[in-house]
Amino acid sequence: MSSSSFASPILKDELDIVIPTIRNLDFLEDWRPFFQPYHLIIIQDGDPSKVIKVPQGYDYELYNRNDINRILGPKASCISFRDSSCRCFAFALSKKKYIFTIDDDCFVAEDPSGERIDAVQQHLKNLLTPSTPFFFNTLYDPYREGADFVRGYPFSLREGVPTAVSHGLWLNVPDYDAPTQLVKPLERNTRYVDAVMTIPKGTLFPMCGMNLAFNRELIGPALYFGLMGAGQPISRYDDMWAGWCVKVISDHLGLGVKTGLPYLRHNKASNPFVNLKLEYKGIFWQEELIPFFQCVTFPKECTTPQQCYLELSKMVKEKLGLIDDYFIKLADAMVTWIEVWDELNPSEEKTVA
Amino acid sequence: MSSSSFASPILKDELDIVIPTIRNLDFLEDWRPFFQPYHLIIIQDGDPSKVIKVPQGYDYELYNRNDINRILGPKASCISFRDSSCRCFAFALSKKKYIFTIDDDCFVAEDPSGERIDAVQQHLKNLLTPSTPFFFNTLYDPYREGADFVRGYPFSLREGVPTAVSHGLWLNVPDYDAPTQLVKPLERNTRYVDAVMTIPKGTLFPMCGMNLAFNRELIGPALYFGLMGAGQPISRYDDMWAGWCVKVISDHLGLGVKTGLPYLRHNKASNPFVNLKLEYKGIFWQEELIPFFQCVTFPKECTTPQQCYLELSKMVKEKLGLIDDYFIKLADAMVTWIEVWDELNPSEEKTVA
Repeated sequence: MSSSSFASPILKDELDIVIPTIRNLDFLEDWRPFFQPYHLIIIQDGDPSKVIKVPQGYDYELYNRNDINRILGPKASCISFRDSSCRCFAFALSKKKYIFTIDDDCFVAEDPSGERIDAVQQHLKNLLTPSTPFFFNTLYDPYREGADFVRGYPFSLREGVPTAVSHGLWLNVPDYDAPTQLVKPLERNTRYVDAVMTIPKGTLFPMCGMNLAFNRELIGPALYFGLMGAGQPISRYDDMWAGWCVKVISDHLGLGVKTGLPYLRHNKASNPFVNLKLEYKGIFWQEELIPFFQCVTFPKECTTPQQCYLELSKMVKEKLGLIDDYFIKLADAMVTWIEVWDELNPSEEKTVA
Repeated sequence: MSSSSFASPILKDELDIVIPTIRNLDFLEDWRPFFQPYHLIIIQDGDPSKVIKVPQGYDYELYNRNDINRILGPKASCISFRDSSCRCFAFALSKKKYIFTIDDDCFVAEDPSGERIDAVQQHLKNLLTPSTPFFFNTLYDPYREGADFVRGYPFSLREGVPTAVSHGLWLNVPDYDAPTQLVKPLERNTRYVDAVMTIPKGTLFPMCGMNLAFNRELIGPALYFGLMGAGQPISRYDDMWAGWCVKVISDHLGLGVKTGLPYLRHNKASNPFVNLKLEYKGIFWQEELIPFFQCVTFPKECTTPQQCYLELSKMVKEKLGLIDDYFIKLADAMVTWIEVWDELNPSEEKTVA
């Protein structure tokens, strides 16, 4: 089934598109037929005095560093600067049920039949159908037209669970770390894998923020992108951090995380020499972070993403604080982030659906 | 990369093809270019006096029920009759490192470019490259040409672990249970998903025996297909049973299980009304079997598939024996199976590589 052939709800009043950027958003011309129905929240990173041009016809709001400082006051300290992690400010600010976030060097991809892929509609489809984290289905997404649960799949698990996160992929320039970029500078992803799958409960994955959608109401507070970039010892791990957090919290809350379709076309490989410096601490620390996250368990009393996140911040301070003082600062910022979330979303139900 | 473009070892002296059947093996004509280099072990189910015709030019040995009884004596009781689970006799009998087993209603599939898929070579490729059960790679198999580990994948996990099992898929008639067959009699799988992936540690899956390969030396003793068919209260769960056992044992031994490519073409849907009766107990029992297998853990002292399997037989007797006496009989048969294995493989190293 091609991405355009399903009768999909556009849900224009229920989804915001979040774009972190430092430049004019010419890339939106390519996305116009797919993005224009939606409201954009643009987070301007870098010099706030620079004027970012947005193509005509788009409905958007734009926040630069001065705006974030004005709105959040001292709590703005939890929102990073000079790193794409600044995008999470928009996650807290939005009032919509769904968020789709994309990088400004990503363009519309084509499926093998040559049809341009509407990434937003595929993400919505992923988020609106259940996930199956408790047992693997060998024919992939069982809710897709032409597929189902195979023989041996327990019937009691076929209802699935609500989907919290939809992680999309990239044709052309793959999302490699600096060492792999250096070793394989010319490698391009040309393989279109026509599948969406649930990442099983208990399994972590590297979540990339380039092509990502989620259900704000179910999991929004867990989507903090951490302290990265200016003034921090680490960069380019903002989405990874959020991915580890969101996965352990989704697992605890009985929510699903999917990966696979939709693809977009990622055109610009960032400079591997610069990245190597930015990523160094992350590459080093992740060897201890993964075992930490693999062991995270939450008390039964934690029934909302906020409660889980605050609990996680305590574990980060206690366990990861031993690795480096950075994690003590990060744990404090995680608490501030939840304060920001609750301040910007005062009427929100704090229990998971 | 198409399935024929990799320089693959044929390994003709290291792989046996195992076929359970009750009819003449005309389907081998379709597979001739791919199967003829290999030795076949044919297990004749049903009436032993019937003569099974094998196309000329194939190198094969054939065993019917009388042969199995003669070779195993009283221990033949662990090998089922009138169910495709009889194939596991050949797993124990083979002297090769790798097994590929296929049903006789499966034909050569074509990839999207129209090229005929050499299932054996793709399985060997899957078995000869490592698995990655500890962390999910979003671009699927990282060892495939044109792919790699993505940003955020811990470097310490990039060596992977040895692969024990390669589970292939089916175009045309999907492997549905009887209720799903009844509800969707016309559903056909037409979607070619160009991926191989490791099923994460701790996650169970429905393993189908129709298109399956494994490394006998690493995991063979765990591939017992149980007591099914004639004289038993259950059928059509032989491969599922083996899959649950092989997965928990592979997880314990640090071995990998892959699913995805290669596809073959499955042509004959078995009769859903007959299947409903055959599967009834399995559909009912699997609701308790899955939680059982999800909780299985082995003592550290279990370092071979045999040791794990004997340990598992004790758990089956103790825990599942409470559900039905059938599981007590099955637990005893599991012990007999290991005796058969060790008898037929006397010189085998009993420690995992």
